[in-house]
Amino acid sequence: MKIRLAQIEVRPGRPRENTARMLPLIADARQAGIDIIVFPEMAIPGYLIGDEWERSAFLRECERCGEQVRQAAAGITVIFGNVGLDWKRRNEDGRVRKYNALFVAEDGHFIGPAAGPYPFVIKTLLPNYREFDDSRHFCDLRKLALEEHRELRDLIAPVRSRHALLGCLLCEDAWDMDYAIAPLSVLGESGADLFINISASPFTLNKNHKRNRVFAAHAARLGRPLLYVNHTGIQNNGKTVFTFDGASCVYDSHGGHLECRPAFAEGILTLDIPRGAPWRLPQPLALREDNIGDAADALLYGTRRFMDLCGVERVVVGVSGGVDSAVVAALYRRLLPPENLLVVNLPSRFNSRTTRSLAHQLAGHLECLYAELPIEDSVALTRRQLDGLAVCRADGTHARRLELSDLALENVQARDRSARLLAGLAAAFGGVFTCNANKSELTVGYTTLYGDLGGYLANLADLWKMEVYALAAHLNERLFGRVVIPPGTLALTPSAELSPAQNVDEGKGDPLIYPYHDQLFRCWVERWDRATPEEVLTWYRDGSLEREIGYGGRVGDLFPTPAAFIADLERWWTLYQGMGVAKRIQAPPILAVKKRAFGFDHRESQMGPRYSEPYDALKACLLAPSTAS
Amino acid sequence: MKIRLAQIEVRPGRPRENTARMLPLIADARQAGIDIIVFPEMAIPGYLIGDEWERSAFLRECERCGEQVRQAAAGITVIFGNVGLDWKRRNEDGRVRKYNALFVAEDGHFIGPAAGPYPFVIKTLLPNYREFDDSRHFCDLRKLALEEHRELRDLIAPVRSRHALLGCLLCEDAWDMDYAIAPLSVLGESGADLFINISASPFTLNKNHKRNRVFAAHAARLGRPLLYVNHTGIQNNGKTVFTFDGASCVYDSHGGHLECRPAFAEGILTLDIPRGAPWRLPQPLALREDNIGDAADALLYGTRRFMDLCGVERVVVGVSGGVDSAVVAALYRRLLPPENLLVVNLPSRFNSRTTRSLAHQLAGHLECLYAELPIEDSVALTRRQLDGLAVCRADGTHARRLELSDLALENVQARDRSARLLAGLAAAFGGVFTCNANKSELTVGYTTLYGDLGGYLANLADLWKMEVYALAAHLNERLFGRVVIPPGTLALTPSAELSPAQNVDEGKGDPLIYPYHDQLFRCWVERWDRATPEEVLTWYRDGSLEREIGYGGRVGDLFPTPAAFIADLERWWTLYQGMGVAKRIQAPPILAVKKRAFGFDHRESQMGPRYSEPYDALKACLLAPSTAS
Repeated sequence: MKIRLAQIEVRPGRPRENTARMLPLIADARQAGIDIIVFPEMAIPGYLIGDEWERSAFLRECERCGEQVRQAAAGITVIFGNVGLDWKRRNEDGRVRKYNALFVAEDGHFIGPAAGPYPFVIKTLLPNYREFDDSRHFCDLRKLALEEHRELRDLIAPVRSRHALLGCLLCEDAWDMDYAIAPLSVLGESGADLFINISASPFTLNKNHKRNRVFAAHAARLGRPLLYVNHTGIQNNGKTVFTFDGASCVYDSHGGHLECRPAFAEGILTLDIPRGAPWRLPQPLALREDNIGDAADALLYGTRRFMDLCGVERVVVGVSGGVDSAVVAALYRRLLPPENLLVVNLPSRFNSRTTRSLAHQLAGHLECLYAELPIEDSVALTRRQLDGLAVCRADGTHARRLELSDLALENVQARDRSARLLAGLAAAFGGVFTCNANKSELTVGYTTLYGDLGGYLANLADLWKMEVYALAAHLNERLFGRVVIPPGTLALTPSAELSPAQNVDEGKGDPLIYPYHDQLFRCWVERWDRATPEEVLTWYRDGSLEREIGYGGRVGDLFPTPAAFIADLERWWTLYQGMGVAKRIQAPPILAVKKRAFGFDHRESQMGPRYSEPYDALKACLLAPSTAS
Repeated sequence: MKIRLAQIEVRPGRPRENTARMLPLIADARQAGIDIIVFPEMAIPGYLIGDEWERSAFLRECERCGEQVRQAAAGITVIFGNVGLDWKRRNEDGRVRKYNALFVAEDGHFIGPAAGPYPFVIKTLLPNYREFDDSRHFCDLRKLALEEHRELRDLIAPVRSRHALLGCLLCEDAWDMDYAIAPLSVLGESGADLFINISASPFTLNKNHKRNRVFAAHAARLGRPLLYVNHTGIQNNGKTVFTFDGASCVYDSHGGHLECRPAFAEGILTLDIPRGAPWRLPQPLALREDNIGDAADALLYGTRRFMDLCGVERVVVGVSGGVDSAVVAALYRRLLPPENLLVVNLPSRFNSRTTRSLAHQLAGHLECLYAELPIEDSVALTRRQLDGLAVCRADGTHARRLELSDLALENVQARDRSARLLAGLAAAFGGVFTCNANKSELTVGYTTLYGDLGGYLANLADLWKMEVYALAAHLNERLFGRVVIPPGTLALTPSAELSPAQNVDEGKGDPLIYPYHDQLFRCWVERWDRATPEEVLTWYRDGSLEREIGYGGRVGDLFPTPAAFIADLERWWTLYQGMGVAKRIQAPPILAVKKRAFGFDHRESQMGPRYSEPYDALKACLLAPSTAS
């Protein structure tokens, strides 16, 4: 059998455009004598499209496009994902019954599992975690089994194509990878010749590695080839933007695999697979773990595609001389011609000659447009208008004077830079301005709303500060192959430079000890069991904290006493659950590259900081005057 | 049987505080000789708590609190909602199996349905629409039935308490109200003496009316009383804030009902109900539909509770002289002493004497603090810095000049007001500033990011412009009982006053015709089938548009030709699906009072404006030169 995997870019919410992409590929494949061509999950509608699934006009458009593909399936078998509709079954509120479905079109007909009620294969496991909302929109196979008075496994059956008995399934990401065993096993017992798994799976660092291991083992166990077809492009849930790398793959019957490369690009992979016999790839690939280079590829691809989506061609980056803004500017320089990138330094009296010079150097290395615009006059004007301002009732009584604190003045500077100058510059330049926040800052809200938290996209906001440094090195060493981010920027003490207390030339700066706090925050946000101060304090007491959170140093060197450790822990936890959440609600879209990006992948309610009873008890115990002395 | 409904305020994510609220109420009830006391759904953990459900430390705290309630249930039966845990069943990623559960504690024990695998009642229908994410976190009864090889209906069984056979269920909001028939019917056939429905149901305009109708009919059909216990307080999903009005209710066997009043307040309702016999309330209430007063109550309650959550005691409202900001200021005046409310007018050269005077009048009527701070100097400074600015490469080459357009200057003004002055004023005043956007503006993004879209809470953003006018009238006529919002404000042409083209004294202003566009936008956003331009244009062609969208005028009077109608339709639809989405992503939390508030109740992806094939065809047909002439 000649089989072709078609790794296409899927544009969410645009059935007609996606179908227009598929039809010529089907024609080409037929001409090339291909027996079966396979497109990804939800190839027609797209996948992460919010409540667009509730619009009947959109559903009808998907159905019409599916019909076009069915008609095109003459002399070739076409497998693709689309929404499966049952217009007769409706929820009481009028919503139409929908399935996340795989269609097999052959000789102008849709062929489904023999025993099933529909001419399509229904997704067995609806993911409903992280960014996924499948069970919000699609009907569960369990519900259908109960309605139809059938055994669940009777509904999981292979499709008998002219070419082979096809074990078709829709499966997704690493979290419930092991569940894939269930439908795969059922299909395996049915004697399928070949397993076809269509997917719409966003890039997550190291997900491919995990899937390759698991799927290769499945294919070897089943003794039959397994195909995995995923798409490229970006999709979003509003708050979070996901990249799709494709990484479509074939797994042979002996645990070998071959990938459609490069990642993040449309492509086809054509295979000649013997029917119903074990099969070995001549040159299988080695399993490979992702590294910072893969994250960089995802960031560049995701940023580029998001710019296309928003119609962005010109970008303004405010650069401070620090590493975050330097990395953002360097990333955009990979995506834009020099005349379409404007980097600006916006100094106040607190910005050192050191950082101003680093910003200028960066612009020189990037050969892009540059400007330096001081904010002193405007900050002084705001101070004159507000500090000491008399307010009173409309009749002149009850007068009182307002005062601007030092902290308030720091935020005035940050907002002046972004909401006044960067936003104005972006408009004058005919483009947008960027948000340069990293995940460490975003976790604890160490950022100013309408200030440095403003921007059209936060493309570093899923990277911890230490990961930003690694990305900076990768940009210099690999992507540019020369120094673009100045060594002085990499050596600088991270600082907001908003007050004399943050003087970088005196080695003063951010209150965060990034190598430690990155790891602490990671265990709250990204760790599978989402640790809290209760776990952290228990590990601290047991002496296992460094190991548990993966901190290379000794916590005792940072915090000499339990009181100091606890004060630091509570300071940041309170910010993480307090102002941090409030700020994230108004943050720009975040480009996700890992598990648990803020936004829709890590859903949060504003509830204020919370500590558990065991935490309180442990804290009291650790702070009690020692009786042993 | 003496039964008490305990309508308590539930604080999400705070099991210890909620339990501390419940325990004295249990003790009081025992002393008063009550047999059964009923608390709401998720009374211990709260309900809308995001991914906090994934934190093991939080789940353990909920379990400990449940144990405390169990121990307190001596000499009294306590019914309450909590998370039901099965620590032995875990997802492959380590997440613990969780149920949305109803517990019956009696004589120090939890008693569940006789045939069930757990000592608690499991929620049958997990809502997964609008703001609800139940199936993201909780296990489905269908899944359990399949795992346990049981019929679904065998797992829906009454609980045999010492006092009666209790038909217990967890049920929620109006959308799937009719589904409630299923578990209620199963329980009804089991001979239950009494039906107890615990809930965590947010306020939505007219939801109580619908529920009262449906539940009263159920109780009459079953011939047994039905209790409904809901809580008060607020809960949020980050982007959207929901109020809980309580409205706990008892329905007698004859279709009568009695409510725990007032709404939005903790309270108890004590009843003496005969066991296993029909029962009639002596003085049942009449069914009543909600009106603008109920929306106002929800807004005031939700705003107050959100202030408490954020620790807000002082508020700055930027007032333009227009109706939205006047209504916001008046609402806050109901919640704050005059010295804690500062209203400020921030005029530029484009603001008329008319609106400045109206702002001053409003402040006088509210007797709060007032200031007028012009933005002219700052806007001029920004213009000097940016308009004509030369940018070039770091080496001085490739120079070009930037220009600020008129539209860009409008946005400079809006951002100067909010991000510079209101944010600075809020800091100096020791409080926050408000976002005064309404739903009409938010739908099409007729608002400036970091400008008038900034603020800590958007409490009018679920009301269309015409509803804001109705609320203004309600504030004057009912809540204040005197004119606080000046009649001039109500008579004014709505205008942003950011350019000479928006001169209110010449009757110029917003490009929106609110009585029409409100209804048009409503059919896109709030209508059950989420209409699109395809439906709208079909109705227009058929002459049924006014009726379908509920517009009192004639569309032909607004748009003389199909071309004019289509241009307007596409202008706003493009903004709704384009910049509107981008702006909503960075909007403040929105206080919901109706179905489909923006944010988490109406999930959106950024996908750009989209039109369907039938729309394109219909448009071409309507725009074609008539052949009949």
